[in-house]
Amino acid sequence: MTLSDRYSILFEPIKVGPHTAKNRFWSTPHAIGYGIDNVASQAGVRSTRAAGGWGVVFTEANTISPDMDKTPFKMSRMWDEGDVRNQRFVVDEIRRNGALAGIELEYNVSVNPMAEGRGLQPKMVSGGIGDSGLSVAYAGTLLELDREGIEEIKQIYVSAALRARDAGFDLVTFHAGHAASIIAHFLIPYYNTRTDEYGGSVENRTRFAREMLQAVRDAVGPGIAFGLRLGVDTLDEPIGLGDRGLRSDGDTPEVIKQLDDLVDYWDFVPGVVDWGIDAQSSRTVAENHEKKWVDGLKAFTTKPVVNVGRFNSPDTMVEVLKSGQCDFIGAARAGIADPYLPEKVRTNNIGDIRECIGCNICVSRDMISMPLQCTQNATAGEEFRRGWNPENFTPAKNRDEPVLIIGAGPAGMECAMILGKRGFENVHLVEKDSKIGGSINWVSNIPGRHEWRRLVEYRELQLSQLDNVEVILNTEFTAEEALEYGAGIIIAATGSHYMRNGIDPYNRLPIGLDPVYGERVLTPEQVVRDGVEVGKRVVVVDYDGYFMGPGIAEMLAKRGCEVVLATRGEHIGEYQRYTLEISHTLRDLRDLGVKLRTETSVIPAGDSKVALVSPDWQEEFEFDNIVLVGPRTSDNGLFKGLLDRRNEWAENDVSMVHRIGDSVRPHFIAEAIFSGHRLAREIDSENPAKPLPFIRERRIIDATPEDYQLGAKALSSIY
Amino acid sequence: MTLSDRYSILFEPIKVGPHTAKNRFWSTPHAIGYGIDNVASQAGVRSTRAAGGWGVVFTEANTISPDMDKTPFKMSRMWDEGDVRNQRFVVDEIRRNGALAGIELEYNVSVNPMAEGRGLQPKMVSGGIGDSGLSVAYAGTLLELDREGIEEIKQIYVSAALRARDAGFDLVTFHAGHAASIIAHFLIPYYNTRTDEYGGSVENRTRFAREMLQAVRDAVGPGIAFGLRLGVDTLDEPIGLGDRGLRSDGDTPEVIKQLDDLVDYWDFVPGVVDWGIDAQSSRTVAENHEKKWVDGLKAFTTKPVVNVGRFNSPDTMVEVLKSGQCDFIGAARAGIADPYLPEKVRTNNIGDIRECIGCNICVSRDMISMPLQCTQNATAGEEFRRGWNPENFTPAKNRDEPVLIIGAGPAGMECAMILGKRGFENVHLVEKDSKIGGSINWVSNIPGRHEWRRLVEYRELQLSQLDNVEVILNTEFTAEEALEYGAGIIIAATGSHYMRNGIDPYNRLPIGLDPVYGERVLTPEQVVRDGVEVGKRVVVVDYDGYFMGPGIAEMLAKRGCEVVLATRGEHIGEYQRYTLEISHTLRDLRDLGVKLRTETSVIPAGDSKVALVSPDWQEEFEFDNIVLVGPRTSDNGLFKGLLDRRNEWAENDVSMVHRIGDSVRPHFIAEAIFSGHRLAREIDSENPAKPLPFIRERRIIDATPEDYQLGAKALSSIY
Repeated sequence: MTLSDRYSILFEPIKVGPHTAKNRFWSTPHAIGYGIDNVASQAGVRSTRAAGGWGVVFTEANTISPDMDKTPFKMSRMWDEGDVRNQRFVVDEIRRNGALAGIELEYNVSVNPMAEGRGLQPKMVSGGIGDSGLSVAYAGTLLELDREGIEEIKQIYVSAALRARDAGFDLVTFHAGHAASIIAHFLIPYYNTRTDEYGGSVENRTRFAREMLQAVRDAVGPGIAFGLRLGVDTLDEPIGLGDRGLRSDGDTPEVIKQLDDLVDYWDFVPGVVDWGIDAQSSRTVAENHEKKWVDGLKAFTTKPVVNVGRFNSPDTMVEVLKSGQCDFIGAARAGIADPYLPEKVRTNNIGDIRECIGCNICVSRDMISMPLQCTQNATAGEEFRRGWNPENFTPAKNRDEPVLIIGAGPAGMECAMILGKRGFENVHLVEKDSKIGGSINWVSNIPGRHEWRRLVEYRELQLSQLDNVEVILNTEFTAEEALEYGAGIIIAATGSHYMRNGIDPYNRLPIGLDPVYGERVLTPEQVVRDGVEVGKRVVVVDYDGYFMGPGIAEMLAKRGCEVVLATRGEHIGEYQRYTLEISHTLRDLRDLGVKLRTETSVIPAGDSKVALVSPDWQEEFEFDNIVLVGPRTSDNGLFKGLLDRRNEWAENDVSMVHRIGDSVRPHFIAEAIFSGHRLAREIDSENPAKPLPFIRERRIIDATPEDYQLGAKALSSIY
Repeated sequence: MTLSDRYSILFEPIKVGPHTAKNRFWSTPHAIGYGIDNVASQAGVRSTRAAGGWGVVFTEANTISPDMDKTPFKMSRMWDEGDVRNQRFVVDEIRRNGALAGIELEYNVSVNPMAEGRGLQPKMVSGGIGDSGLSVAYAGTLLELDREGIEEIKQIYVSAALRARDAGFDLVTFHAGHAASIIAHFLIPYYNTRTDEYGGSVENRTRFAREMLQAVRDAVGPGIAFGLRLGVDTLDEPIGLGDRGLRSDGDTPEVIKQLDDLVDYWDFVPGVVDWGIDAQSSRTVAENHEKKWVDGLKAFTTKPVVNVGRFNSPDTMVEVLKSGQCDFIGAARAGIADPYLPEKVRTNNIGDIRECIGCNICVSRDMISMPLQCTQNATAGEEFRRGWNPENFTPAKNRDEPVLIIGAGPAGMECAMILGKRGFENVHLVEKDSKIGGSINWVSNIPGRHEWRRLVEYRELQLSQLDNVEVILNTEFTAEEALEYGAGIIIAATGSHYMRNGIDPYNRLPIGLDPVYGERVLTPEQVVRDGVEVGKRVVVVDYDGYFMGPGIAEMLAKRGCEVVLATRGEHIGEYQRYTLEISHTLRDLRDLGVKLRTETSVIPAGDSKVALVSPDWQEEFEFDNIVLVGPRTSDNGLFKGLLDRRNEWAENDVSMVHRIGDSVRPHFIAEAIFSGHRLAREIDSENPAKPLPFIRERRIIDATPEDYQLGAKALSSIY
């Protein structure tokens, strides 16, 4: 296939400093939870991006000195010669796969526990107070920079840039986005209240950046393109910094002009701490949502400009280039969901793009210091440690065995698709509903979850292209029918449901609302999927801790209900704290008048009244309905029935029976998809029910290179 | 020196299974944040304990399968052959230093994100609901064990025990304390609601442990002592499990009897999840506080019994052995604070014991996934990575330089002591107050902080024994006087103080209460140290986030004040969540009627009224005084004065000037002590102001053993 003229602009080479990028796809720096200690895992993620056609591939923000150790966050580092050695390995892997290799360097100002950098003093621009990385206010003071300190930090940047050169990087971005570095703190009046020549006017506030960039250029010489990732707008209060921030329509153009001759490119993002509006989920923002803040800034520079904005659509990408908004399509999440996005555009396989749904599970893993995961792309983060490539599949040894998969939700769809790609001759994916997608079909109707539909759409198209996979709708199976179906491999993917009276994890007793209020207690499925009518006054009782409780509260409040959202947890929608969604969710719920109650038990107090009881207060609430977002339970009857008939397997030529997804245990959608993917990848292993050992990158006494290869003895349970 | 008869019982050898412990000092399993990947750091902590005379030295609870991966907590692991190799290194180091080596094996039931063990399914005994390790309710379901699952987990225990044998361990403890393993969950009715032969009667609930222990013994054979760390009492509600728990005066004796012939020793602790009362801080409990639950249980076993209880005093240790409470003095924290405790008892140097103050900073580091730290013992966790031993000091190259240390708070005391031990000929420690100790002298008057006095008492005694260190009281210095004093090295250790109107970290504006209310705003020093009278109605405004705000609230409420404790943070006394103190603190404050307000701004609303404003509500409060526990600021005038006179150093023969502790930046007491210690350890390095590089244990591409040695090129900033 050849490149459509429509997208050819995306593949025009362009100069960046001393280098030429082969196209306009720029994989921006983003954390993946492997740091540089898990060096081959780091290389695996980035080199896959390079193989997928991104012209420029960055690793991530690197801490550049133990002065600003961010442990326990597993960020990449450029501290010492050992790091250089590991970084060089990553660079080589990126370049070998055809991309320019970039690194982001960051001297952060946030307060961290300094676990490794103990005894060193994190610094700040002025005021002595930092934003805490760990909510540990007691450790919240930093050392205000004096003249000597400023020189020292410039030198730290120079040293890190020299190390980046020695590691072989082509591009070096200095982080000044998200108000997340000392450079940004100098630029932003909110942080910079200095009265010397580094504070006050724009000229003074850019002084540190100018001096640092000049010192770096003098020391490093030519050969590297230097750029600045600039937080161009720090947003309105209360999420942003208001008048004391940096604004696109304020000082930012002047900042750009003052620094333009010292950089080779710009990477513009809006953003304050907590990332503000940058990298927001699809709950809150649409594709190219950052346009509002970044568009027009290209006028103030002569250098190439990178923009991000969860670009998934090649048409949008073409539009932003043609309109002059930017020169490079920057992407983190779109590249996580589909590392081969550029290659699919180039070869005109647009429909095959595995589009990011904007759920921000990827971000959440970073926030809790974990390796990368992606709901759409089960291979994200598994490139090295399990040897998975998202587009390459080995033919399965047992591909002649007919496969029956029962349930076409996330796990079933993924499993069928991967088995199809592994060359199984005959896969039947059977669904009791009239369409595939399972719970996604109703979950995507919750406010802000519409883009999650893409999980179904992508797989629907892929399945339709696989001649060896047949999708059969409106069909249910008993265990007996499944056994007699003629399949050698049977896989149950029957999902889960919310319980009417599950076990309360806070006291391990039945929740007890259903026995008292019966049909006035509704489950999420009843409210969202089945459209059961809900009365005026509603208590949403959330044991789920993610999007379901807040989503239903939002939906009902928008319909005009009076809603109380109560949880026994410490926080509303706990997990949304990690997906960057929580401040937006809380704002929206409060705007809608939803009463938020945390650490609160909901206890029957009469026919149509509940007591809301917390350790510090108690109140009563008259209600018409309760929506119980309780624990979920697996729909595993089919699987258990198959196990009960184990003695009938042989006579029916059934070699194995598995279950995947929520029918094992209810979990994130990402885990359901991973579960189906993993089984399909390892369906021809000795015991497919158990994941194969993965590579653990760590110091091993007397290690040899073999210890870091799949199948190594060091990785095996020898007993 | 010889052993006093008084303590000789502590050194009587005793049989444990096939081994003989040389004495009664048992270093219990406890996490140190290095896992087994930082293998030499792990070995450093444990072998120092062995060198210090503990007869039995355990490492820590090890996860035994990726099924129950506890990432991001950096627990030790016994998963595969690579782990065995690393564990063997640790065992060798412990044994080389004269102790028996023990390991604790744990199959945990808590809900974790399974970052590494992705695709595996954590299991539980019944009910499908687990306690969450990360407050992520959405991932809160586990797989209920069927018969096959039970066999599988037994096999996992057997495999782990075989690996422990291969690594060379002498003792293997199976964790069943803190309701933290599948063994405990089988034992405790709260978790075990099974109706098969594994649930119901005590016989049924011990069945899993019996079968597992028997299977392990059959597989491993003789040579290893096996024991159970049993949570003997799961406490009253609400902190404990009440009637549904296991109780010392209930089923526990029967549990012990049923398992006694399968174990070689017992390690008894009270405890539920969150450790309950085990390892509580000195705020809440005294030495041997666990007696209430563990005493008397020895009657039900014929095997040796270990007890813990923050034993610091050799006299208490003798008493618990003599009274028949137990056979071994188990200790984690006492051994962290003083690894050489047994050796100091043996050589009759009781006064030299660095007693644990029970602050639980050690626990807090574990809770936030960090390497071990200790307030008393600055070398804890630094044994390998910095090469520090708590009792061994090298003579300093520049020890003939006279040293002047100004300020005898935690940092100054520690620095003077270590310089003294490093052989400095002439150290003057000068204090403006009439006694040494600095802020500890008043901080220890806050409710629950009395034991912190030991920080001063220990150092006071040590300093009195050092002829080369002179303590000079009631003396202040100007920079000029310091320069002219005759010292070659001047060290400022002048501390910090709470500000009357510091910068609010939530909006970076002055807090603004002092300008409105003047003298009615009081600082912690005024209230606690100076005894300034406080009116009836008090608002304690806490920006500190640890013990100071809640402590002052408690103190004033006990005096009869009406107290509101307000913080802009999400939680009261945030950091106490990590020191295990928070549930006790909240309970006590609520019992005293203190109103707790989180996410709350305190805003002037009239002459004697403030508004308490949160995102969801607002109220007014009439007050007499505000206690502002605001940010602290360094008292660094002296240091700055010395820098300003840099041109006078040479003429006064001053070779260097440093500052340490809070006068650099206010922080934990542990950090102040570390700061003084670190400077003294490295005072003869090329640039003592900067900590020397430490050893980073990680995978390094093309690593050689030299890369993991102090001074290695791989650890150095070559630029």
